[in-house]
Amino acid sequence: MKLQSRHLLGLEGVRKEDIALILDTAISFKEVLERPIKKVPPLQGKTIVNLFFESSTRTRISFELAERRLSADVVNFTAVGSSVSKGETLKDTARNIEAMKIDMVVIRHASSGAPHFLTRVVEANVINAGDGAHEHPTQALLDMMTLREKYGKLEGLRVCIVGDILHSRVARSNIYGLKTMGVEVSVCGPATMIPRNIEALGVRVYHRLEDVIPQVDALNVLRIQLERQKSGLFPSLREYHRFFGVTKEKVDRAPKPITIMHPGPINRDVELSADLADGPHSVILEQVTNGEAVRMAVLYLLGTSN
Amino acid sequence: MKLQSRHLLGLEGVRKEDIALILDTAISFKEVLERPIKKVPPLQGKTIVNLFFESSTRTRISFELAERRLSADVVNFTAVGSSVSKGETLKDTARNIEAMKIDMVVIRHASSGAPHFLTRVVEANVINAGDGAHEHPTQALLDMMTLREKYGKLEGLRVCIVGDILHSRVARSNIYGLKTMGVEVSVCGPATMIPRNIEALGVRVYHRLEDVIPQVDALNVLRIQLERQKSGLFPSLREYHRFFGVTKEKVDRAPKPITIMHPGPINRDVELSADLADGPHSVILEQVTNGEAVRMAVLYLLGTSN
Amino acid sequence: MKLQSRHLLGLEGVRKEDIALILDTAISFKEVLERPIKKVPPLQGKTIVNLFFESSTRTRISFELAERRLSADVVNFTAVGSSVSKGETLKDTARNIEAMKIDMVVIRHASSGAPHFLTRVVEANVINAGDGAHEHPTQALLDMMTLREKYGKLEGLRVCIVGDILHSRVARSNIYGLKTMGVEVSVCGPATMIPRNIEALGVRVYHRLEDVIPQVDALNVLRIQLERQKSGLFPSLREYHRFFGVTKEKVDRAPKPITIMHPGPINRDVELSADLADGPHSVILEQVTNGEAVRMAVLYLLGTSN
Repeated sequence: MKLQSRHLLGLEGVRKEDIALILDTAISFKEVLERPIKKVPPLQGKTIVNLFFESSTRTRISFELAERRLSADVVNFTAVGSSVSKGETLKDTARNIEAMKIDMVVIRHASSGAPHFLTRVVEANVINAGDGAHEHPTQALLDMMTLREKYGKLEGLRVCIVGDILHSRVARSNIYGLKTMGVEVSVCGPATMIPRNIEALGVRVYHRLEDVIPQVDALNVLRIQLERQKSGLFPSLREYHRFFGVTKEKVDRAPKPITIMHPGPINRDVELSADLADGPHSVILEQVTNGEAVRMAVLYLLGTSN
Repeated sequence: MKLQSRHLLGLEGVRKEDIALILDTAISFKEVLERPIKKVPPLQGKTIVNLFFESSTRTRISFELAERRLSADVVNFTAVGSSVSKGETLKDTARNIEAMKIDMVVIRHASSGAPHFLTRVVEANVINAGDGAHEHPTQALLDMMTLREKYGKLEGLRVCIVGDILHSRVARSNIYGLKTMGVEVSVCGPATMIPRNIEALGVRVYHRLEDVIPQVDALNVLRIQLERQKSGLFPSLREYHRFFGVTKEKVDRAPKPITIMHPGPINRDVELSADLADGPHSVILEQVTNGEAVRMAVLYLLGTSN
Repeated sequence: MKLQSRHLLGLEGVRKEDIALILDTAISFKEVLERPIKKVPPLQGKTIVNLFFESSTRTRISFELAERRLSADVVNFTAVGSSVSKGETLKDTARNIEAMKIDMVVIRHASSGAPHFLTRVVEANVINAGDGAHEHPTQALLDMMTLREKYGKLEGLRVCIVGDILHSRVARSNIYGLKTMGVEVSVCGPATMIPRNIEALGVRVYHRLEDVIPQVDALNVLRIQLERQKSGLFPSLREYHRFFGVTKEKVDRAPKPITIMHPGPINRDVELSADLADGPHSVILEQVTNGEAVRMAVLYLLGTSN
């Protein structure tokens, strides 16, 4: 079986069977991760470049481990703050990658659409590791894998994404993917952090955690970007925590236990209380392990399909 | 067949048959780059350190890919701006490399002669990836490979190097290599940017592009170091572009198409117009691919000769 | 044979037979380092993360080479000055490492005890590559290997550690290890740089090089941290050099040649004169080679013991 696209740029428009194929493949790779020797040969002799224009230790290491465990050769290119992040130079960088005969590119970039741009210039398979406020598809896939593992299915689940939806590529990719898989999706956050017309995506909007908590199986709590405070989007961390911080006290009011998800790294006791993050209903570390498995699956499916 | 030297420090004094051997070997490796599995085993178990005291993403990645594709183990050491770049410490660094039993060192350093110094202290094969304004031999070799591919031979070709010849290691290595291979070499640039006595190397000097364009098969356009402006070597970018910028308008006056080369990254529409860079007579991306092949050839010939 | 612990956190409390096992194993690996192909397969398929919260080019490269030569997959994580160095985040980082199914972690951290903390959170084998002013066990092991090679045994040797003992993890690990192996250990430095009660460790204290030089087989000269000057621990470099700088003039007064050791990088002609560093009784470069061998031995013994 093959994915419809040679690239993974986002989950918008990705078919249900493609998402299912990635999640099923990820389950096989998760078994590999439990073995003493966590290495398999399918990408031997393939060259992958990790092109990170934004710093991201966790995502970069997760991809790099996945690449090495598939036996690929890995070259890291980190260009945070360099002149390379400018438009024209991305084109030149892309053409150079092409000319160096690189097989796959994993790109993180501050501009929405940078990975799509890349596919128009290079033959290599392109994987979006986060582009601006647009998409972060492997994060959403690992979130879905974690939910499916926990509940045995995705169809019919009720998931609320909490926080700054407006600026979140994690939220966007989750909404696309979860909707495709038949999940009932809602979002909750301050009015200034909810995109207008988001209901058009089939998403319900809440502005009070108290209203949404009794209605859902899982909360996917987004990291608050502390630097946003300056922009006046919310008055203070204390106030944010009071209204939108997910705490034990608030979720305990739900009729049944709520699964707690977070893409990491957590601002403990800001958007999520430490007791919930480390508590019995948190699947946050499972998300990290599943990130490995999902990235191996995506790299494998794209890298062996040509 | 073997190269005369255990190191590649520059092209000055390198024999014609050695350059030919490198270019012939590079052609075989270029075929490897067209395969689905671009990896061959000759340097398995060899350790190569990339010792970059000046930042250079492209050259470093090009070398690193070449090393991995030959199955070497690669360690990167980037020390831009660190105390390591000071004289005495280079000696200590070199001795440490020696003591760590490293097989090959690829070095880029702001000081002319740093790679030569290294060969006096270490047993490892040393490859110069650019030393000050002195030499950058693999760049010149890839330029020659590209010309030979295009014209089937080097002997008798006429090549002009355009720009800041005085500060360019690319120019210097090209002059040595091209002259050895029987190419007619000229240079063109502002008088302040042409080394005195360069004619002693058998190079013709031009100060007007209009004069040289009708006389040559190819222009190798150097990148203008924008930071040089402050030094008063040329009055303004606009003026530089007007007199020495290579544009379609200027090259169209030649009796036959002129091959356009550039070592990258290009300052588009400064030293070279975008239409020429991307046009049918540009071999700039071929140069990048050939850079891979040439570096594999050099690493292979030196690394298997001991 | 197996080490008692799954981790190497320090040499305090490590059994004599464990140190001997590491040194014996290191000798076999040193033979590997003399071969044309310096690579062996025991850690194939194992993933090692080098988690360096303090910059250290030499130690990092030494570990990375050792890891690759054992065929492990290596991921580097350098977080100097990043927010990751804060307490809570080390915990999160550790849990992420665990969740990513990493087999071994080599950690350098400015806080004493960070590696020990890590062992409480992760399943991976942890190797301390230096924690604050606490321990740096592989450095002490390579020092001991070098002494044992030179003298054929450790028992009964007399070694003096010279310099800022108070802030030195190298000194501390050497004291623990050397004492366990039956070496007579002394320290020499300004009174402000000698820990109180160090005699309780069975160490003799000297404040004048002249007094200790006639009594020892080897001097292990510590690097002076130049930034300590500001703290008022010693009045000036000149004065430090005069009283505690190890010079040819001073060691020549000894009845027999004294072996000169230094963990590097050397401040030449500050704590150690250049002629001694490069002289016939210096084993400083042998220490670097033995560092490779010792790190291979530790990685091998821990990585294959699970």
